[in-house]
Amino acid sequence: MKRRALLSLTAGVSALASGCAAVSSPASAPSPAAVQGTGDLGVVIERAAGALTLVNTSSRSIYGRVTGLGDLSHASVVFSRDARFAYIFGRDGAVTRVDILTQRITHRVLQAGNSIGGAISADGTLIVAQNYTPGGIKVFDAATLELLADVPAAMADGKRSRVVGLADLPQRRFVYSLFDAGAICIADLSDPRKPQITTLPDIGKQPYDALVSPNGRHYIAGLFGEDGLAMVDLWQSEPRVARILADYGRGEKPLPVYKMPHLRGWAIAGRHAYLPAVGRHEVLIVDTSTWAEVGRIAVAGQPVFVMARPDGRQVWVNFSVPDYHRVQVIDTPSQQVVQTIEPGRAVLHMEFTPRGESVWISCRDDNRVQVYDTHTLTLQASLAVDAPSGIFFTARAQRMGF
Amino acid sequence: MKRRALLSLTAGVSALASGCAAVSSPASAPSPAAVQGTGDLGVVIERAAGALTLVNTSSRSIYGRVTGLGDLSHASVVFSRDARFAYIFGRDGAVTRVDILTQRITHRVLQAGNSIGGAISADGTLIVAQNYTPGGIKVFDAATLELLADVPAAMADGKRSRVVGLADLPQRRFVYSLFDAGAICIADLSDPRKPQITTLPDIGKQPYDALVSPNGRHYIAGLFGEDGLAMVDLWQSEPRVARILADYGRGEKPLPVYKMPHLRGWAIAGRHAYLPAVGRHEVLIVDTSTWAEVGRIAVAGQPVFVMARPDGRQVWVNFSVPDYHRVQVIDTPSQQVVQTIEPGRAVLHMEFTPRGESVWISCRDDNRVQVYDTHTLTLQASLAVDAPSGIFFTARAQRMGF
Repeated sequence: MKRRALLSLTAGVSALASGCAAVSSPASAPSPAAVQGTGDLGVVIERAAGALTLVNTSSRSIYGRVTGLGDLSHASVVFSRDARFAYIFGRDGAVTRVDILTQRITHRVLQAGNSIGGAISADGTLIVAQNYTPGGIKVFDAATLELLADVPAAMADGKRSRVVGLADLPQRRFVYSLFDAGAICIADLSDPRKPQITTLPDIGKQPYDALVSPNGRHYIAGLFGEDGLAMVDLWQSEPRVARILADYGRGEKPLPVYKMPHLRGWAIAGRHAYLPAVGRHEVLIVDTSTWAEVGRIAVAGQPVFVMARPDGRQVWVNFSVPDYHRVQVIDTPSQQVVQTIEPGRAVLHMEFTPRGESVWISCRDDNRVQVYDTHTLTLQASLAVDAPSGIFFTARAQRMGF
Repeated sequence: MKRRALLSLTAGVSALASGCAAVSSPASAPSPAAVQGTGDLGVVIERAAGALTLVNTSSRSIYGRVTGLGDLSHASVVFSRDARFAYIFGRDGAVTRVDILTQRITHRVLQAGNSIGGAISADGTLIVAQNYTPGGIKVFDAATLELLADVPAAMADGKRSRVVGLADLPQRRFVYSLFDAGAICIADLSDPRKPQITTLPDIGKQPYDALVSPNGRHYIAGLFGEDGLAMVDLWQSEPRVARILADYGRGEKPLPVYKMPHLRGWAIAGRHAYLPAVGRHEVLIVDTSTWAEVGRIAVAGQPVFVMARPDGRQVWVNFSVPDYHRVQVIDTPSQQVVQTIEPGRAVLHMEFTPRGESVWISCRDDNRVQVYDTHTLTLQASLAVDAPSGIFFTARAQRMGF
């Protein structure tokens, strides 16, 4: 997100009720349900139309569409344990549960004025939304979207902090960061109506995004208000915050940053993490045993997503304006850029198939999703999708930290 | 497997045709198909009855059963990309394709006299079976089980070698070991009717099992005829065999080995691999950057499966006779046994749910599958299953090397 955009997020919020308003009229008509496996399905966000395109990664084709999802200009998706239901968190504060088999909305709540994403518990029973307006998190029954808890993230002055960087942890716990309070919170929702919150204060100024390492051990928050990153080792019996990569950020002479990189797009491949440098045409290489920088790779623009193929042998990078027609491929054993492709205009997101044989790439301004063979870089399919942004495959149901 | 059992495997083979005999009469009656997700389903092998118990890991319950699968005294399972079809490789050389939604057999071929497992390509189009009698591999269309190629693994003397340690690699390639020829083969099946085989000879005597690391990079074969392990770095442009862990094996004064440990059950957690010691009451710790042993952990018996919870924070161990009523839990940060449980008699297999919150354990002689919370070790469910052995969840569809 742009610095300016982030700081003015509260400005355009409409007077929506901050409670949960159930929407009773699904906007999309039900389609005949299919008896089919769900292991190879996924959804593509149509950010302009507020719709989902439903896709099959075996046939590399579109099999359906669901409309009526509201403002999806920033949206994220998690899946139920059975890989049948997609939960869509929209910018407008709506959480929508979509049945990707019957292709209809089953539940929808307007739960906040402005929201930035959500998560699902490992046991599949709880959905948590992280909110900007009003700040805090809300906890829902995953089957019904009934509100179970409202955790306001109140600060000393009584105001609520905006919440970012939400991720699921084992045992119905969740971790998130407070943008306005400079804190990291761990919520224990083992009794979801009685949340137990542990707050780690003084982590640094304005955490703007965060990630959990694939094994669920390290939670790392990027700081908007200063350089460096805040890290928590969640396997410690009493987790504390450490500061890592003191130079990570904009530095003393801030560079123009066209889009703050997504931390969620960090790649951890083998013992190294690959990070988008802020404002620079570089990908940083970090040793995950020491969390020290061990190298840099020059790339074609300001990196946004830096994503590892599931086997970690390749890292794929997309870029902010004006270089967002390109995608580069880094070979991790040699730590070199080995390929540059131009999939289309305005590449916004990439998603690998679960075993990494293909990558799906959203090209918003061409209204295309392009599918490439990751080994040969052959174009395998080109699908017409209206202004595609995020791509989410059901395999996410089976991974932590999403 | 016992040494004696392995070496006499060819003795009891019946006079089945070595070709592919299609079986046209599914032994199980079709059940009404359900519209449901398949992300949380799985199968349990009933080794005595030659049947599958179908299970749901969200409700922790049994939802169906499929019979007529032949000799499942040693069986393994892979899943289709869509997580709807299970392919069962039986000891009797049969490959059976089961629809876990409609709960019936869709295809079944008797493709060998004695078989020890199989694999599926990342793109989901090819099934490969590894065979003892006659030796070699066979390649099938995953949708129809039509035979596409028969690769005999012929040796210099014209005989066929038994094949073990089969695993899938990217790009429709497969890797396997030749027990009788002391070789590792890589089959390129990009044109499945014209297999291209690369053979790496002189890897050591009698490879009896093998594994691929979770990232698909390292293939490691255990040797029955000598100490040490054969390893191939599959990311090299021209893969070669290196010998690692020279002391791994039975040593100069062979210990009584009640059951050869499954290499497939190695745990790789973080930078360490945890291996069952052969014949000893120990789990070995190996650094995966050097492949040198860096420690040993004393355990309650001869380990069989040493399996990492998906997050790598725990390693679970089961044992051979006479200690196979116990299961131990190793905490990987401290590298210590932290729990010992007794789930039932004759623990044969364990399977973690995809995000690791539960583990399912087969207790053959109690006719029970026990489900534990991996964090609290609370028993979450106890399911009646006739002589259960292998447990396989659909999330395997999305991982390499299975």
